[in-house]
Amino acid sequence: MEKKAVVLVSGGLDSATVLAIARAEGYACYTLSFDYGQRHRSELRASAAISETLGGVEHKTIALDLRAIGGSALTDADIAVPETGTSGIPVTYVPARNTIFLSVALGWAEVLGAGDIFIGVNAVDYSGYPDCRPEFVRAFEALANLATRAAIEGQKLRIRAPLIDKTKSEIIKAGIDLGVDYAATVSCYQATAEGLACGRCDSCRLRRQGFAEAGIADPTLYRTP
Amino acid sequence: MEKKAVVLVSGGLDSATVLAIARAEGYACYTLSFDYGQRHRSELRASAAISETLGGVEHKTIALDLRAIGGSALTDADIAVPETGTSGIPVTYVPARNTIFLSVALGWAEVLGAGDIFIGVNAVDYSGYPDCRPEFVRAFEALANLATRAAIEGQKLRIRAPLIDKTKSEIIKAGIDLGVDYAATVSCYQATAEGLACGRCDSCRLRRQGFAEAGIADPTLYRTP
Repeated sequence: MEKKAVVLVSGGLDSATVLAIARAEGYACYTLSFDYGQRHRSELRASAAISETLGGVEHKTIALDLRAIGGSALTDADIAVPETGTSGIPVTYVPARNTIFLSVALGWAEVLGAGDIFIGVNAVDYSGYPDCRPEFVRAFEALANLATRAAIEGQKLRIRAPLIDKTKSEIIKAGIDLGVDYAATVSCYQATAEGLACGRCDSCRLRRQGFAEAGIADPTLYRTP
Repeated sequence: MEKKAVVLVSGGLDSATVLAIARAEGYACYTLSFDYGQRHRSELRASAAISETLGGVEHKTIALDLRAIGGSALTDADIAVPETGTSGIPVTYVPARNTIFLSVALGWAEVLGAGDIFIGVNAVDYSGYPDCRPEFVRAFEALANLATRAAIEGQKLRIRAPLIDKTKSEIIKAGIDLGVDYAATVSCYQATAEGLACGRCDSCRLRRQGFAEAGIADPTLYRTP
């Protein structure tokens, strides 16, 4: 029988790599994105395009307006995206975002009968977000295996985070080997509508550094040269 | 300092009672409902009205269309709401609903600096839903205490489920003592736009039986006598 997986895709570099990994493992991939009121809405178009290019079976974009809650530079227009390194958890952290995204993925996985949910979190070259840590992923998996009808019926669900211990350059090398076209991905927190990156936010800086360390030409389209 | 809590309200009997309990414990209550594509949309009006009557500080209704996922009689118009008892987990179960609702509540709690989230789940007179069990609530609390910036900073978050071991009649008696007006609550899975109950779905039957066992006149407005 076909192995099904729900794959969270954000249009960025990490989740595109995760989708390629899941496809390489033979999963039929159902990709899920969120229109959550983020600044960088060009990632939604990128998500759909990447899903199609990498052979996703079906792509859904779920509307869930996290601006109603706010508390992040990504969902509150009055909080600026930092363009220099900051200490501690940065203001681009969106409260409970990965918990919320995984929860909706869990619902879809249950409806599909999928046994795996893939997420591109990363505890190495990340920005200090609490919901990108291995202990968070394990706790969500424990919850998932109590939360659903499938769990009661004895079906195990796995939360797969294949990038969790990889550096950005290792992720890029893995993706290049699997044929990911990173020019089609958008990582920037404040990308233009056309998907042009600022080159200055945390996400741009981690990405640029990753390409440099991997010794691979950075295909990112920047707003400024 | 004021104790803040996020209280999930559905417009129904259980969550109205939970809100009254949280208020009686002295919490400033921020109430949260979801417009998730449910059949029984009259519960949204009831939620807002109950929050105001019981002294909620602020009420939010978040739009999140779970019809995109389907898999339940409450979110798929092609699946009928059963009007007789069924065995196993009924088709009114919405995949991962409580996980999703608690996740969004977690995000709001973090933004507010609230230390408690109240939810009206009930493991006794419930309908066999997996996400109404004590072990589910404990697993979500464990997750919540890893998922957020507040958790990293050492602030504990509690998931409070004060009805978890109560029968429907015990809940009703507790609510009456706290002054809850159950005529304003809507429990029916297929209530009319005016909030009139069918009297036949699982939710109506549990509720009607609860009033009978409590020896309290049922104030529910039914569609049929």
